[in-house]
Amino acid sequence: MNFNALFQAQIDTLKSEGNYRYFAELERKCGKFPHAASHHDGKVQDVTVWCSNDYLGMGQNPVVIEAMCEAVTRSGTGAGGTRNISGTNHDHLLLERELADLHNKEAALLFTSGYVSNWAALSTLGSRLEGCIILSDSGNHASMIEGIRHSRAQKVIWNHNDVKDLEAKLAALPVDAPKIVAFESVYSMDGDIAPIRQIVEVAEKYGAMTYLDEVHAVGLYGPRGGGIAEQEGLMDRITLIEGTLGKAYGVVGGYITGSSVLCDFIRSFASGFIFTTALPPAVAAAARVSIMHLKTSDSERQRQRQQVAKLRAGLNRAGIPHLENQSHIVPVMIKDPVKTKMLADYLMDEWGIYVQPINYPTVPKGTERLRFTPSPLHSDADIAYLVEALESLWKQCAIAHAVA
Amino acid sequence: MNFNALFQAQIDTLKSEGNYRYFAELERKCGKFPHAASHHDGKVQDVTVWCSNDYLGMGQNPVVIEAMCEAVTRSGTGAGGTRNISGTNHDHLLLERELADLHNKEAALLFTSGYVSNWAALSTLGSRLEGCIILSDSGNHASMIEGIRHSRAQKVIWNHNDVKDLEAKLAALPVDAPKIVAFESVYSMDGDIAPIRQIVEVAEKYGAMTYLDEVHAVGLYGPRGGGIAEQEGLMDRITLIEGTLGKAYGVVGGYITGSSVLCDFIRSFASGFIFTTALPPAVAAAARVSIMHLKTSDSERQRQRQQVAKLRAGLNRAGIPHLENQSHIVPVMIKDPVKTKMLADYLMDEWGIYVQPINYPTVPKGTERLRFTPSPLHSDADIAYLVEALESLWKQCAIAHAVA
Repeated sequence: MNFNALFQAQIDTLKSEGNYRYFAELERKCGKFPHAASHHDGKVQDVTVWCSNDYLGMGQNPVVIEAMCEAVTRSGTGAGGTRNISGTNHDHLLLERELADLHNKEAALLFTSGYVSNWAALSTLGSRLEGCIILSDSGNHASMIEGIRHSRAQKVIWNHNDVKDLEAKLAALPVDAPKIVAFESVYSMDGDIAPIRQIVEVAEKYGAMTYLDEVHAVGLYGPRGGGIAEQEGLMDRITLIEGTLGKAYGVVGGYITGSSVLCDFIRSFASGFIFTTALPPAVAAAARVSIMHLKTSDSERQRQRQQVAKLRAGLNRAGIPHLENQSHIVPVMIKDPVKTKMLADYLMDEWGIYVQPINYPTVPKGTERLRFTPSPLHSDADIAYLVEALESLWKQCAIAHAVA
Repeated sequence: MNFNALFQAQIDTLKSEGNYRYFAELERKCGKFPHAASHHDGKVQDVTVWCSNDYLGMGQNPVVIEAMCEAVTRSGTGAGGTRNISGTNHDHLLLERELADLHNKEAALLFTSGYVSNWAALSTLGSRLEGCIILSDSGNHASMIEGIRHSRAQKVIWNHNDVKDLEAKLAALPVDAPKIVAFESVYSMDGDIAPIRQIVEVAEKYGAMTYLDEVHAVGLYGPRGGGIAEQEGLMDRITLIEGTLGKAYGVVGGYITGSSVLCDFIRSFASGFIFTTALPPAVAAAARVSIMHLKTSDSERQRQRQQVAKLRAGLNRAGIPHLENQSHIVPVMIKDPVKTKMLADYLMDEWGIYVQPINYPTVPKGTERLRFTPSPLHSDADIAYLVEALESLWKQCAIAHAVA
């Protein structure tokens, strides 16, 4: 059997739809963020990165870099095993305590990624709580969808951020079945924010546990960076808060926080936690320092908000349509995969502006977009230059005002 | 609903079976491996680690440490995004080229862990190849089992390392269905090695593709560390070779290698690859240097084999029963979870020897064991001391000769 031909046929379909993905090859350079070198066809070009999830530039913060190097020099490059078999390091436990404190929970549990934390926690909860029903927001991330799917628990999808629909669906379920309401705070592609208080109230009314993904919010919202739930004073009413160390904290890894017995339960039964090498202690040490820094320093968050507001104002002045929301994410909808890639290529080639075209399956087909994430390190000049580039592009292109 | 009570009840069951897991909290110290500090009940104890999967001590090799620090200082602590959205770094591509070269394949694809590489690759292959049937060795790792399960493809389990059974099962399947024979080279808990040549011949006869997990073999076997398939001269006959950067290479992460179109297929469709933050460039840089080192240096492998042979000889002299195999893994079967933990606790408390009790679900119930992994850095004195401790323990314990 010619397997390569089977693979090629599916790749060809992707290409014909405009959904084939070309990765930009970057070289991040300490102290230069959001500027980086882009490698393409043997050439190297200086570019400004406008689509990173290193939202606050903490991945190049000197205290985080120093913490990682110190820990590598002190303990080496790897953990040495799974958490159970020689891989639990003192640095992991210090980080888990820091995370529990961040969300004001009894305990935290570290995973190799945010994807794995969602997948492993939801698949374990859904498969081991007998008769469990998971009520999942229709906009939830792939990692949550795959975790729920893997659990084989009954799944009920409620309309995105629609509390009335959630309540109607909760009310229709058997009273004595264990229920989990799974949702996110900041949705990464539209940048909209869930009505957490109303969701929690409805979940409490029906005795459901709440599972909140804050990966696009931790470090960025709340007085100590605890996320939207901290900002709203709701952390103690959420059963499980999940987060990442790979976005605002600038390193890599994921986690859950909750009661001690909840974390112990996931620790004891989740295949995706048990059977995998632990994160390097140096990753844990760097993440911990990043969290500690953002617990007390608010300047990065304030400056980011200023730069987000400046970009929105500039886009408005230039007549560039963008999705309104309360977050740091600025989506400009193009609604066609081929056009989105064409615009992104032009911005990269002609202006040295790097923004990845966002296409299916990251967003639904027909909602392709450019997604800008201003950081505290984007200067006013960077913003003015981006607006100038987009304005020029919008004037040139036939799609100009058709994309509103 | 009292969710904590539901969690507690399942934890209580684990405890009553003796299967509840207590993690040892270690501090690895550069230059000291296999010695480390163990934290327990507020006390710190120097211990010798006898169960690490940092098989060659590369996690503390100076060239690997230097590569990681250099890359952290050069480019920061994180990748900045998913591979698609600003997270692909030059260091990732250099590593993927190194991995393709290691296995003499056209291409390689990096994942956040070996677990994720198996789960993502097998779930994508099984779900996207229409009518696909996966023939899985009964001893396969949890990550492969979960990937196959997630794919919802038809699964046929063949008896562990039993080529006749594999052939019988292949022969019974429809000729025109795409088939994948999934297996490992070195099985981590028994340390036995698959008859790769015979498996490949049978797979070829029936037109099946071969999926080989070499995580406990890469870096350790073959003239350049390419694994058992390299040692046997069979790499070019395996469709997909999967490996890890977290064991012999001493860092973290997983990968697949194969044809360019195979890797592009997984890259384009695997949820667990697409929707997750890329590994830090510094992790990629460190792993690459570790691989390059072990491509040309054979001394670590030779010394490891010598120390493994010395431990086996010592155990034989002392009358301590252990599983015979051709690998670097030395299992001493105890066959009871409570006794295994009791022995491990005694070795830790009285002798400063750390070997994690291996219990369900890592091994089947009734096959609990102590699993020793001698490295090139375990001295002759370390080995003599371990044998002395076990001999003393075997003499003391009632289980002495009942565990053969």
